[in-house]
Amino acid sequence: MKLYMTEMSGNSFKVRVLASILGLDYESIRIDWENNEHKSDSFLKLNPRGQVPVMEIEDRVLWDSTAHLVYIARRYGGETWLPSDPLQMAEIIQWMAFAQNEVQFGLQWARGVTVYGRRPESFEGYLTDGRLALNILEDQLVKTGDWLALGRATLADIACYPYVKRSGEGDLPTTYYPEVEAWLSRCESLAGWIEMDPKV
Amino acid sequence: MKLYMTEMSGNSFKVRVLASILGLDYESIRIDWENNEHKSDSFLKLNPRGQVPVMEIEDRVLWDSTAHLVYIARRYGGETWLPSDPLQMAEIIQWMAFAQNEVQFGLQWARGVTVYGRRPESFEGYLTDGRLALNILEDQLVKTGDWLALGRATLADIACYPYVKRSGEGDLPTTYYPEVEAWLSRCESLAGWIEMDPKV
Repeated sequence: MKLYMTEMSGNSFKVRVLASILGLDYESIRIDWENNEHKSDSFLKLNPRGQVPVMEIEDRVLWDSTAHLVYIARRYGGETWLPSDPLQMAEIIQWMAFAQNEVQFGLQWARGVTVYGRRPESFEGYLTDGRLALNILEDQLVKTGDWLALGRATLADIACYPYVKRSGEGDLPTTYYPEVEAWLSRCESLAGWIEMDPKV
Repeated sequence: MKLYMTEMSGNSFKVRVLASILGLDYESIRIDWENNEHKSDSFLKLNPRGQVPVMEIEDRVLWDSTAHLVYIARRYGGETWLPSDPLQMAEIIQWMAFAQNEVQFGLQWARGVTVYGRRPESFEGYLTDGRLALNILEDQLVKTGDWLALGRATLADIACYPYVKRSGEGDLPTTYYPEVEAWLSRCESLAGWIEMDPKV
């Protein structure tokens, strides 16, 4: 298993932290993001999105972090991180879709404006969706307690963590979301957790 | 199984067409979208996003269409629509994540501007991501032939269909994407397929 990544990619972090928790060996290939290697012809052949992370598994390529997490969890994680029961699986997938929707297009992209100056014209929309993301997470944790789903740490938590953790940099601080802040700390206390690069 | 939906919701269509293909019985509850029932207190208790579709399964609620498709496919679809093999499952999940990323935040939201006047300031970004979506789909179909993944119809195709089908209304016509157009027709010829409401 090969992982093309950068330390500053939150989506790469999701895959790296799950692999660390499960104690998996894999080859890590750092993309030279600063020199636009992710937009090179050879990289675009691997991933037409021009993004990291990308995984090579034998002769197959997967270029989406949600897919990477699903692969690792089902191949190496037993029933813990993504159970095979249809309803439990669907519940986890719901939170992974939420991570790719409101968390990404709200929290992550708001930070894309403030930190990288990307698409500033869309900032208000990102803030609206980002606030919805934090409200939904806070309400869910009030209901469920320690974790987003199934009463234990799952892919739901890993998929949501990085861009919630960094949301303050996008003018959406977690200060008023005490359950969210406690949950972030709880994620960080999992055995095998690794520290996220400050540049994510 | 209860499905809260509207005929004009593309995400509801994904669930309805899969249920039709599999011949599933369920209770369909139409939300009065025109009178903002999806923003009512009682509906927001079911789904904090304020959107359809929502599914109730016994005493559980799922409010994300990706999760609905995963539930139905794993519960009623055998190995066809979302196989249990980790790598094959991950490949399908990749295209479902793509449907929630470039297809939604490109094609669907570009149409949200032209048809509903939503977030017009973000139109250029939606067009950029929507073009990427169509390019990626066309290239994939050139490589794989009839279907997006696994050489057969899967959740990958159903998840991508609705907002690709309607992308022309968002100034992103499929005219220059012959493989995409052939694939849309191929989806429509599946046994059990239902016609999508013209208002989607």
